[in-house]
Amino acid sequence: MKQFFPAELIKKKRQGLPHERAELEFMVQHFVVGTIPDYQMSAWLMAVFFRGMTPEETAWLTEIMMNSGRVLPFRDQGRWAVDKHSTGGVGDKTSLILTPLVAACGGLVPMMAGRGLGHTGGTLDKLEAIPGMNVHLEIDRFVQTVETLGGAISGQTKEVCPADMKLYALRDVTATVESIPLICASIMSKKLAEGLSSLVLDVKFGSGAFMKTASDAHKLAEALIQIGEHHGVRVTAVLTNMDQPLGRFIGNSVEVFECLEIMKGQSFFENDIDFYSDTRELTIELAIEMLLAAQLAPHREAARAKAAETLKSGAALNKFLAICAAQGAVPDWKLPVSPSEHIVRYDGPAGYVTLLDSEGIGYAAIQLGAGRLQSTDKIDHSAGIELFVKVGLPIEPGQKVFRLFSQNPQTLALAERRLKTCLQVGPQPPAPAPLIYGYVTAKGVEYAN
Amino acid sequence: MKQFFPAELIKKKRQGLPHERAELEFMVQHFVVGTIPDYQMSAWLMAVFFRGMTPEETAWLTEIMMNSGRVLPFRDQGRWAVDKHSTGGVGDKTSLILTPLVAACGGLVPMMAGRGLGHTGGTLDKLEAIPGMNVHLEIDRFVQTVETLGGAISGQTKEVCPADMKLYALRDVTATVESIPLICASIMSKKLAEGLSSLVLDVKFGSGAFMKTASDAHKLAEALIQIGEHHGVRVTAVLTNMDQPLGRFIGNSVEVFECLEIMKGQSFFENDIDFYSDTRELTIELAIEMLLAAQLAPHREAARAKAAETLKSGAALNKFLAICAAQGAVPDWKLPVSPSEHIVRYDGPAGYVTLLDSEGIGYAAIQLGAGRLQSTDKIDHSAGIELFVKVGLPIEPGQKVFRLFSQNPQTLALAERRLKTCLQVGPQPPAPAPLIYGYVTAKGVEYAN
Repeated sequence: MKQFFPAELIKKKRQGLPHERAELEFMVQHFVVGTIPDYQMSAWLMAVFFRGMTPEETAWLTEIMMNSGRVLPFRDQGRWAVDKHSTGGVGDKTSLILTPLVAACGGLVPMMAGRGLGHTGGTLDKLEAIPGMNVHLEIDRFVQTVETLGGAISGQTKEVCPADMKLYALRDVTATVESIPLICASIMSKKLAEGLSSLVLDVKFGSGAFMKTASDAHKLAEALIQIGEHHGVRVTAVLTNMDQPLGRFIGNSVEVFECLEIMKGQSFFENDIDFYSDTRELTIELAIEMLLAAQLAPHREAARAKAAETLKSGAALNKFLAICAAQGAVPDWKLPVSPSEHIVRYDGPAGYVTLLDSEGIGYAAIQLGAGRLQSTDKIDHSAGIELFVKVGLPIEPGQKVFRLFSQNPQTLALAERRLKTCLQVGPQPPAPAPLIYGYVTAKGVEYAN
Repeated sequence: MKQFFPAELIKKKRQGLPHERAELEFMVQHFVVGTIPDYQMSAWLMAVFFRGMTPEETAWLTEIMMNSGRVLPFRDQGRWAVDKHSTGGVGDKTSLILTPLVAACGGLVPMMAGRGLGHTGGTLDKLEAIPGMNVHLEIDRFVQTVETLGGAISGQTKEVCPADMKLYALRDVTATVESIPLICASIMSKKLAEGLSSLVLDVKFGSGAFMKTASDAHKLAEALIQIGEHHGVRVTAVLTNMDQPLGRFIGNSVEVFECLEIMKGQSFFENDIDFYSDTRELTIELAIEMLLAAQLAPHREAARAKAAETLKSGAALNKFLAICAAQGAVPDWKLPVSPSEHIVRYDGPAGYVTLLDSEGIGYAAIQLGAGRLQSTDKIDHSAGIELFVKVGLPIEPGQKVFRLFSQNPQTLALAERRLKTCLQVGPQPPAPAPLIYGYVTAKGVEYAN
């Protein structure tokens, strides 16, 4: 490999000059083996934060990170693997349904998922609510499960994208997470390492999302799509609203429960609305994109019918149970149930719900034990929050707003105090905000309305 | 001490928000003891590079760094210590004359000097050309020498500004040196730790200086003066031209020789000009500022007369020899003389010297052995360069331009090749550039012309 001086490469980026491919290779490869120390990498990361990267640099960085570990064999074998990635939300449990649904339709879904981050939940934490479930499959077993059942959900191992694992850990403690090119390279290197041919992105915006506006979400989507294009991977992004939590539950066990209910065709009505409708709607929209991307349906309406039928017939549920069994879930598993619960009631004047702050609700769920404040914290899988209201609904004094679950009753009062600040009520209902804002592909954007 | 999360402080600076004093204290003090790791500090330093610091933050950082170690007692004792600091040049040897000159006038000059940095020479390296000379005095012996003789020149020890030593080492390898607030805090924390009441700055600009333009030098001077004001230290900055090397020699032994000659009242004429005149002129200008600042002269003309008389009488020379003896120089010391030398002649058409690239000449001197390319390199104290031309002089084919000195004859050809690119000749003499451009104080700027 060509030799460079790390300090000169840091200075180059600091000055806003684009790197050559060999320079990025030098930085990343030496960082992975430790011959570039963390203190030089973190200065470089901060310079990238301020100076950005060209699309070409971002594509190179992605590829270099992807090639720092193993790449799954599907694409090289000519098999059309597809996956979905969400930029992170509160109550966002669609992965748990999408993987078995698309697998049941004949797709190949090698989903490498993550843990909860900040106020957002993580698919792996949710799955671990299922007794016996192993979300750290060896790579070969993971591939074999995907080949046998059409899908599996597991964590990134050290063999896949080690550069990303090491870089992410450093970014987390050096305030260099929020950089579009670094976010793009991190997401796409892991997804490309799955050996995908196509990828569907759920790019969320709003109070509970990393991107606060639809316009920022659109920009992020375009950057991710550009990297996909560069590597011959078809990427479709769905821009979705995260101004309030998705669905009925926030937590781990309770979110798995919600998914099982939806896969059983259930609804849950409270205050005249089905609290499963938004989770179901988003799941079907993302399933449509995955089925189209994987060429498992000729057009949108056929894809919609196929996704709905796969849910209705119980095929998605059976596939989910088969995947869980293959990943070690005990026979006839039961989800853990919280030993204590607490109802939070509204105590203000009558009106309409104008805000349900997803970020605050996400942090309240963490307080109850559903997530981690520090990476060493243990999760209470039975902890969580049930929602009884949605933005736009009328609300009366004394009405139930949240039900809290926790093994630790001391956290209930703390979470209640925080949650009361997450609910805002006004005299008029707010303007309706659609769940699906638009679709972005390499060809451009298409708005949902 | 109040507790903060380092990543949150890095983020705050990244976002361009000013730090509170306690936050800066937390960062620096934890960094010094190692509880904030290098990788967080370097990310913060890069954020400071991009976002800058308010004058208040810079003053706090300076004070916190100063207080990370011992502060010399002069100011607390009510004694008026004065020092000079140069931002670094090529052939800049004024410190060697100024310290004994001001001490001989009754001043107190506790000069803590540095090593060569980049293409610029370092006072400590020059002094070490004197056999036996100890430039690493223990703090107590340093203070005692200053009290007894009026002056001493020694290196920063680990007891003085340890925060600066550790920060500077990290900045050097993370491309975060070139930040005005960090430069200011580094310079001023060390100088304030000397217990000064006043400080004279030689802020250089031009091809051989860190600041390339007089306007940038002016800005740096103002930032340094502001910190001095904040700490009740009177700071005067002289803005001086570093478009060509200062004086007759560049190196270590040869620069000490030049200083001894000037302190003996000698001149050295070549091509009808005195090659000691610019070193002498700058030294006297800086001495005037030091004498005025230390209230050792009532006004500029009295100060000029006093400085000239102290040079002429041999009092400065005697003081220099006394300081050297006190710092361990062997009796009747002789400077090392290079065993091999080489004359470089001009081989182009007749004309006028339009450029003598100081930076290139500085690096050629390093190639000859007069400085270090890496911090572990050994210095050849007898190595160096003699200049036979100055900008503006007429030049003929075959005329002597440089004389090179080195113990390692193999370096002569390399240095000659580089030096030929440092000399530019044109058909017309360039517009004259005065050595002294102006004076900056807290009251404003005064131009020399």
